[in-house]
Amino acid sequence: MPAERPPRSTVFRGGLVVTQDAARRVRRADVRVEGGRITDVGEAGTLRAEETVDAQRRLLVPGFINTHTHVANAPLRGIADDRDLAGFLETMFAVDARATDETIEAGAAQGIAEMLLSGTTSFLDLYYGEDAVARAVERLGIRGFLGWAVLDAQFTTQRGVPLDNARAFLGRWKGRPRVTPLVAPQGVYVCSEDTWLGARDAARAAGTFCHFHLSETRKEVHELEAKVGDRPVNWLERIGFLGDGMVGAHGVWLTRREVETLARRRVGIAHCPSSNLKLATGGIAPVVELREAGVPVGLGTDSSASNNSLSMLREMHVAGLLQKHHRWDATALPAQTLLDLATVEGARLIGRADDLGSIEPGKQADLVLFRLDHPTLAPARPEAVVSHLAYSASEEAVDSVYVAGEPVVRARELVREPWERLRAAAERAADHLWAPR
Amino acid sequence: MPAERPPRSTVFRGGLVVTQDAARRVRRADVRVEGGRITDVGEAGTLRAEETVDAQRRLLVPGFINTHTHVANAPLRGIADDRDLAGFLETMFAVDARATDETIEAGAAQGIAEMLLSGTTSFLDLYYGEDAVARAVERLGIRGFLGWAVLDAQFTTQRGVPLDNARAFLGRWKGRPRVTPLVAPQGVYVCSEDTWLGARDAARAAGTFCHFHLSETRKEVHELEAKVGDRPVNWLERIGFLGDGMVGAHGVWLTRREVETLARRRVGIAHCPSSNLKLATGGIAPVVELREAGVPVGLGTDSSASNNSLSMLREMHVAGLLQKHHRWDATALPAQTLLDLATVEGARLIGRADDLGSIEPGKQADLVLFRLDHPTLAPARPEAVVSHLAYSASEEAVDSVYVAGEPVVRARELVREPWERLRAAAERAADHLWAPR
Repeated sequence: MPAERPPRSTVFRGGLVVTQDAARRVRRADVRVEGGRITDVGEAGTLRAEETVDAQRRLLVPGFINTHTHVANAPLRGIADDRDLAGFLETMFAVDARATDETIEAGAAQGIAEMLLSGTTSFLDLYYGEDAVARAVERLGIRGFLGWAVLDAQFTTQRGVPLDNARAFLGRWKGRPRVTPLVAPQGVYVCSEDTWLGARDAARAAGTFCHFHLSETRKEVHELEAKVGDRPVNWLERIGFLGDGMVGAHGVWLTRREVETLARRRVGIAHCPSSNLKLATGGIAPVVELREAGVPVGLGTDSSASNNSLSMLREMHVAGLLQKHHRWDATALPAQTLLDLATVEGARLIGRADDLGSIEPGKQADLVLFRLDHPTLAPARPEAVVSHLAYSASEEAVDSVYVAGEPVVRARELVREPWERLRAAAERAADHLWAPR
Repeated sequence: MPAERPPRSTVFRGGLVVTQDAARRVRRADVRVEGGRITDVGEAGTLRAEETVDAQRRLLVPGFINTHTHVANAPLRGIADDRDLAGFLETMFAVDARATDETIEAGAAQGIAEMLLSGTTSFLDLYYGEDAVARAVERLGIRGFLGWAVLDAQFTTQRGVPLDNARAFLGRWKGRPRVTPLVAPQGVYVCSEDTWLGARDAARAAGTFCHFHLSETRKEVHELEAKVGDRPVNWLERIGFLGDGMVGAHGVWLTRREVETLARRRVGIAHCPSSNLKLATGGIAPVVELREAGVPVGLGTDSSASNNSLSMLREMHVAGLLQKHHRWDATALPAQTLLDLATVEGARLIGRADDLGSIEPGKQADLVLFRLDHPTLAPARPEAVVSHLAYSASEEAVDSVYVAGEPVVRARELVREPWERLRAAAERAADHLWAPR
């Protein structure tokens, strides 16, 4: 693991700051960072520190939180496009069987590079072989909330018992600054009651939470209904699984009663609109109803094989377009809400509302510095910048990215490792995974 | 107008070429250009010319054709988000009344810069004051197909009679290499039969075509039905307007009979999915049915005020997601078709199938060189690159852009004028247009 930058204090001087505070203020300000945290947000030109970063031509934004992906799939981008879900999964499972620790780490590093370069500072993952993903996280300096996939023994390609593997993973990665291990039940189609409850207990014992697929397709809903007489959320409630700040990914096919259950149990949803649309899932996550009921909702890109971008900038755009269209209501999910989903609401979803998602004293210094003079941020008027983030900003407008006050992207270059080296390893991984198909 | 580069020959050596030829071949090849046109596409390392451009780490793609926008609105990005169409238009009309030749040219230059930097080499516009847009086109070197807006006298803010203004515009910009003047009836809600037929005759007399709004909203369809007893396409057919390779923008609310009429009259559709979704138009253009009927379909971004991006890369992504979702069919609009809409089909839509849209001998050398080593194009496998263009490539991956063999973007910098100067003028235009609101 690369050495952390020695703690020192920094002032980001005079940038236009999208604070995402309770009042959602956008203001010219100094932002002071020390020991990895924001210590002060004050009038431009007033704060002092050892190091000063000139931010006059920068827009400061809280780092984005990508609440659902399978980052190791980055080298599989384009391998299974334009197929129905069954055909898509057939390819994915066949290719997965060829994955090695080396291809997983190289793929994760590729995906993390893409995320950092588009302003994402935290992500939730669901996969097996998460040790290799965790190594890539620590190499590149992003925050990874990494869920080890658990499923019934008869469905897995994992060596050993998935739940035992997950417990061991939790133990190995406890207390690391950038890695938070999670337990990740794959979904109702491959997890029995025992697996769900075992996952919950393992997470609880380790002081963490579960991240799982939930009601993504009609098929999984209908098959579960045929098998146990209940829809997924109702059944998970019946067996006593739900609770503890869990994060369900997708939540496309939900009834109003299920939405109420999620709210009561404080289980949130990672909304993945691009992936749902691309795989023709058919339904649309009831984001407005979920939020009205008080369910935390974040945004997720899902994997590079089903999106195919890992950019939260694109995901905000698509999320907004989709709800407006679906509801015949152009006021649905306005720009400010879209930015909320990508920042403060994502933080709330993963139980880190006090720590991540906004630029306020006490929070982690996870910051993205956008180029205010970039073509996709013009006109750079304070009253328009939130709209630009949600609807037009291109990844290239991300100049620098900080995680816990440490620069991980500077002038569009990864700080810790050169992209060219990551790229070469990722292409080798792709060669191994793609051919011969 | 800046001097054209002296004609000379160039070979783009050894790039991965997305030819968009009839067989849709993707191959390592040399591309030779002379006098602004492609003279040869041959085996890598075999072609000779005065100048050689090393393209080994480049993906060569035909320049994108954005078939509907209002480019001068670039400084209005973010001014009227998240409002219903009536509220949106109210703001747009109020702001439009403040536009001057100077703000139009500065806004057009801003929008053209964004388009060039995202790989667009041709665009169709609909606006008044197109002389200022044409000047921006000639300054920056893109191809502009510029439609002068015509509408009934009682609805216009134009000085003089719109149709006379359009005729004069056609005369002033005839025979220019980068500007093709069009006539642009605004829509059935502001154009009488006389205006439509006058527009058609003016275009016909000048050897050009009409570009117009068509069936974008339910409201315009229902109001026309109430007024004349017919839906827009049926009525335009009844009055004898349709024909001559016209381009209707949107085409959201069409019946099967109207689709058949468009096919019979060889009238095409500029599909603008992001704008339709963002304004909550409700319907979805029947792209699959239009194509099955033989109607040419291209992609358009619409304006920066209703998208809010001018990137055709984003538009391909959104277009694909939307049709897959709408039809519950992940195979709808596959990646290759999306790229076709943005290139060869766009060329066919505007009657330039012999001249634009593919990398083949005899075609204009409108070329985009993408960085094959960019994170959003990984893995850079020949069988995946069309998918990456449609679903993941970020604008930053566009390294260089050529129009008629002339470099207009090189290493992400505009060649003819620096972005910083365009930006300053665009921000001044925004200051004039936005405040006080």
